Amino acid sequence: MGQLLVEGMDEEGITMTASLREIFESRSIAVVGASEDPSKAGHQVVRTLLAAGYLGKIYPVNRNEKQILGLPCYSSIAEIKGPLDLIVISLPGKAVISVMEEAEQRGDVKGVVVLSAGFAETAIPENVEAQRQLVEIARRAGIRVFGPNCIGIMNPDRRLVTGFHPGISLVPGNVGYVTQSGALGGSLVTMALSQPKPLGFARFGHVGNMCDVSNQELIEEYGNDPRIEVILVYLEGVKDGREFMRVASRVTKNKPVLVLKVGRTQIGAKAALSHTGTLAGADAVYNGAFKQCGVVRANTVHDLIAGAKAVSMLPKPRGNRVCILTEAGGMGVVSMDEVEAGGVLELAPMSQETCERLTALLPPMAMVCKPNGYVDMTAAAMAKEFGDAIRLVLSDANVDMVVLNSIPPTFLPAMDVAQAIVPVVKELGKPVAACFTVGQAMAETRRYLEESGIPTFESPDYAVRALAMLTQATFSVSHPLGDVPSARHPILDRAVLEARHPLEPESLDFLSDHGIAVMPHVLARTREEAQRAAMEMNSPVVLKIVAPQVIHKSDIGGVKVNLQGNEAVGQGHDQMVNDVKSAIAAADIHGVLVVPMAQPGTEVIVGMVRDAQFGPTIMFGTGGVFVELFKDVSFRIAPFDKEVALDMIKETKGYQVLRGMRGEKQKDIASLAELLVQVSQLAARYPQIKEVDLNPIRVHENGYSVLDARILLDAE
Amino acid sequence: MGQLLVEGMDEEGITMTASLREIFESRSIAVVGASEDPSKAGHQVVRTLLAAGYLGKIYPVNRNEKQILGLPCYSSIAEIKGPLDLIVISLPGKAVISVMEEAEQRGDVKGVVVLSAGFAETAIPENVEAQRQLVEIARRAGIRVFGPNCIGIMNPDRRLVTGFHPGISLVPGNVGYVTQSGALGGSLVTMALSQPKPLGFARFGHVGNMCDVSNQELIEEYGNDPRIEVILVYLEGVKDGREFMRVASRVTKNKPVLVLKVGRTQIGAKAALSHTGTLAGADAVYNGAFKQCGVVRANTVHDLIAGAKAVSMLPKPRGNRVCILTEAGGMGVVSMDEVEAGGVLELAPMSQETCERLTALLPPMAMVCKPNGYVDMTAAAMAKEFGDAIRLVLSDANVDMVVLNSIPPTFLPAMDVAQAIVPVVKELGKPVAACFTVGQAMAETRRYLEESGIPTFESPDYAVRALAMLTQATFSVSHPLGDVPSARHPILDRAVLEARHPLEPESLDFLSDHGIAVMPHVLARTREEAQRAAMEMNSPVVLKIVAPQVIHKSDIGGVKVNLQGNEAVGQGHDQMVNDVKSAIAAADIHGVLVVPMAQPGTEVIVGMVRDAQFGPTIMFGTGGVFVELFKDVSFRIAPFDKEVALDMIKETKGYQVLRGMRGEKQKDIASLAELLVQVSQLAARYPQIKEVDLNPIRVHENGYSVLDARILLDAE
Repeated sequence: MGQLLVEGMDEEGITMTASLREIFESRSIAVVGASEDPSKAGHQVVRTLLAAGYLGKIYPVNRNEKQILGLPCYSSIAEIKGPLDLIVISLPGKAVISVMEEAEQRGDVKGVVVLSAGFAETAIPENVEAQRQLVEIARRAGIRVFGPNCIGIMNPDRRLVTGFHPGISLVPGNVGYVTQSGALGGSLVTMALSQPKPLGFARFGHVGNMCDVSNQELIEEYGNDPRIEVILVYLEGVKDGREFMRVASRVTKNKPVLVLKVGRTQIGAKAALSHTGTLAGADAVYNGAFKQCGVVRANTVHDLIAGAKAVSMLPKPRGNRVCILTEAGGMGVVSMDEVEAGGVLELAPMSQETCERLTALLPPMAMVCKPNGYVDMTAAAMAKEFGDAIRLVLSDANVDMVVLNSIPPTFLPAMDVAQAIVPVVKELGKPVAACFTVGQAMAETRRYLEESGIPTFESPDYAVRALAMLTQATFSVSHPLGDVPSARHPILDRAVLEARHPLEPESLDFLSDHGIAVMPHVLARTREEAQRAAMEMNSPVVLKIVAPQVIHKSDIGGVKVNLQGNEAVGQGHDQMVNDVKSAIAAADIHGVLVVPMAQPGTEVIVGMVRDAQFGPTIMFGTGGVFVELFKDVSFRIAPFDKEVALDMIKETKGYQVLRGMRGEKQKDIASLAELLVQVSQLAARYPQIKEVDLNPIRVHENGYSVLDARILLDAE
Repeated sequence: MGQLLVEGMDEEGITMTASLREIFESRSIAVVGASEDPSKAGHQVVRTLLAAGYLGKIYPVNRNEKQILGLPCYSSIAEIKGPLDLIVISLPGKAVISVMEEAEQRGDVKGVVVLSAGFAETAIPENVEAQRQLVEIARRAGIRVFGPNCIGIMNPDRRLVTGFHPGISLVPGNVGYVTQSGALGGSLVTMALSQPKPLGFARFGHVGNMCDVSNQELIEEYGNDPRIEVILVYLEGVKDGREFMRVASRVTKNKPVLVLKVGRTQIGAKAALSHTGTLAGADAVYNGAFKQCGVVRANTVHDLIAGAKAVSMLPKPRGNRVCILTEAGGMGVVSMDEVEAGGVLELAPMSQETCERLTALLPPMAMVCKPNGYVDMTAAAMAKEFGDAIRLVLSDANVDMVVLNSIPPTFLPAMDVAQAIVPVVKELGKPVAACFTVGQAMAETRRYLEESGIPTFESPDYAVRALAMLTQATFSVSHPLGDVPSARHPILDRAVLEARHPLEPESLDFLSDHGIAVMPHVLARTREEAQRAAMEMNSPVVLKIVAPQVIHKSDIGGVKVNLQGNEAVGQGHDQMVNDVKSAIAAADIHGVLVVPMAQPGTEVIVGMVRDAQFGPTIMFGTGGVFVELFKDVSFRIAPFDKEVALDMIKETKGYQVLRGMRGEKQKDIASLAELLVQVSQLAARYPQIKEVDLNPIRVHENGYSVLDARILLDAE
């Protein structure tokens, strides 16, 4: 999967695998499981193809019928004489396999859509096995499979639809849909088509169980299809996160990819096992991955449609500065709330000249540039003022885009307003989103505006969010994942050999070997060694027990801080060894680690976990109890460069602390970013490392100190 | 304002003031400024009254016309022979005053709606004066005024509408609207009426500038009106927050009040002046005030409508436990996301028996109780299974309500599903919200469901939020503001006399006088006094400079911590006095405050500010830099009792720290709540106190220590 095979013989010269594009353009479709019984999906597929006016041949297949909905019926696909491009199968589990075998024998079938559920999604062994067989035959025969458990594909160009939704319209347009849910995918299309100017689509694909064709493969196909200008994805999860990111990084360079990812509050059970893991809610990892590969995320179906309208209809903004031009204060306030809450756009700092000219133009009760970027024209503004005001605003070099709010129709006909602004907006070529509330009374005006290139929205918050998504799509940068060859390291090899995780001094040495600055440290095996080490460090010291069996050192007296002087160090050493021995009799004590007390600084955490979907994933967060409480953490997929590392630091609120709050000096953010890059490299280079936990790290004005380092290896 | 006058002679026996209810039921309306010109508001008002079929007399008034829209026209209101209840004025500023004078002379006019803008909202002195005159005449004449700058009132019972929105329908129902924005109020009604079963209304009032009738007075009137079961409020702000709370506390005892408060990111400039003040974003204060008086807050117009549907159509739930019953996994996941993100509802812990019976009932691929409270029936479920499944779920005593998601119509007709569930839902009497997506294909089914008492929603997140608002409305408790008589205190009096704020030792003594536990402290006037005090405390001490001119003590060496021993204390004292003198030559040093070092504990902040709308307002937050960073603060309006204090502590994330995280013991939350109550009492008792800042307070396992106390007096 993942790669797109072009038409032709494959390397071994045996089978030909069709491209997805060819399958979308199928010229003939067999519906296996077609029926005269309207309660059967197989009936509805034929009915829907007929109703849509499919531009190709339809072959119903059912050995018990002579004719279905007026079409001659075949008893098997072998009986079909002409070429056969696509098969839609609506039969229960096992029967699907026989159809696949017949398709293999024909040799001309390019694709199969398996509507039937009851395969791997049930997690029942025999059904999982049936899906495996299905894939095996498909691979052998060079047939691509959508599903099982899906509604398949739609292509308005050929009036092709393999699903069983009566009444879906095939309105052509520039959107490509990828969906993992037939229900929400269908809703999405229906909502898109019920916009004042229907938001038509070029391709629709529901991937179901993804036994063969996956969501990322569809994204890649849409990326290469010149008809498609916007890609909308409804995502529940990805099978191979890194492959998804590689594809998305390529595609988002050329066209926007908007994703509705649900399951945002589900937390993987596995990820909850370790301290860092409890924070690695899979959804936060998706957030980081999306940012890294330039994907724009929407939070609801309605937001996704709003964003798609903006992205598909509007020119690209030159920046993120928006002017709110409103006819009603209430709607203006709602817009302003959303500008601030969204955090993507900012109010345009319009020139004094623009403000003065607006004041001269507008009725005396208008509120102009209070604050700057906000203009309440009031209901006293007439159509001419709308036109003149939007001209002034759009002509200001500090304005990148405009949200225009108009109120429910009064005696100022909405259409007059629309006709006054359309030519100005067309002439000046900047993005404008309009909120013309509400209801039937505005329908005609909204249609006119959308046909003139101005998307319209039900309420001002949607208009603002739509422009925010347009801005994100315009300025998002993708950072493709690099390739780092796997490697071995003597410290890791030794630990594996001894079936244990690296001890803390080993972890520190390992990090140091890879350019990470660690504290000076000595593993003291006796009281005297500890005393000597402390003396040489010429500083108060920390003692920590080193024993593979001890995980939570402090709980059993295995950590002592701020010891000063020969006596204190010696006594601390002995007491620690005794305490640990009496707590864990079997503890294999390698010695006591002596480390100087660290300079003060801002505490942060850097962690690495292996995400089930995305592999090595780096976490950054503000230290202490507040990480748990406020989840002030960010994630990115390893490996990455310094630019990504800085992004992930800036994403947290803790960044404000690092920059220096309350008169504190700025901390060394550059070296912290360098550390994140180094950990991300390690994570990619050593797949045998399961988890890294550098917690806490103290960031100073110059450099940082890693106060505690834990590296866990994969037991397998 | 605020009180509702009943019909009859007032105390002085001179004028009669009509109740708002009488005005809503006006039997005759004069439209002053009526016109034959369709571009004038005065024309549209008459047209709209005629179109609505107003059940009363319409008198157009315009001295230049004989007839308007077929009705005889009057040259002034004096000319109108019959009784006149209500006047709608659509004339520019000054002319409004003359009409008011004529109305006063008639003696029978009960209410006036002033549509015209151009009064106090412009902040232009002569317009403000015109509004003042208007009010003066109205008071004298016993006439109630809506506006200026409003669209007035609607009452479907009498087909009465004073606005100029063509095409608004007057569908009777149980909702009462209060709006501060004509535009958003109009949108709200239009959206409500475009629901599958129109959400009709009993009364609508747009208060505009609120020169006389205010939003809280309308809320009170609706509270007393038996026709109204739900009150929807669009709020930009209140004039008198405490009066608003008193009214809301009374009304929410009997019927739900749902408020859309906009301007959530605006921060009062005044509030930003002091440290505590910067956090007192007015909107967070509104949040606290709403909770305190039982008001349910919605965040968007769409949420408000969703909540209103649930509250007006559904029975009250017995708890907050919801079962998500879905036909499609995607919609189920969206529902689950919203349950967790909303934080109001929780998944119902259904009995093992229910889970087992569901498993037996549903198709084999169904996901039952994974997790418990969630049932994905899959698209293989037929109408009968819908009916039987919802019966099982609703019969479980652990289920308080259900969200039912159905997918776009397939071969299973949506209406069959609806007809299977309606009788079960009616029989079992628990709230059910349905999401039947999407579009025209579902219109008939949604109408049937809503007419059968099951509200329907466009997407699953709205269904969940609607039930969450219903739950909040059911279980909200109002805590009416108590009355605390004002008082004086010698410490405050002395400070006022000397035109300064209380010094820190005075603040501590003042707090102590009111039962608040403060640290032992001594004001040392010499080095020797400081040393003696420290010795008697028998603990390391903190020294702090006491001088009215010094605000930021630590910045100029005015705080020294952890001093131990005679020498250290003496030296610390002298150095502090020198440092402060050289930093601020004019500093009037009263001495050095000696305080023992506090025990460790969890740091929190308690503050008091006077909010422009709500008066004395108490803030609680987690201490340190994180207050600023994460805004982990809660507000309530003073005075309040311990129950409210506990609510405000529990509202913060810091509550988890106080309860004891990471093996720490629980801190003394009860005494912290007591402290909040005491500060709230002080705030109410001493209006001369402008601000209190107890920051930080360290909360121990037993009791707390106030480490720094600052009281600022009102300069006026």
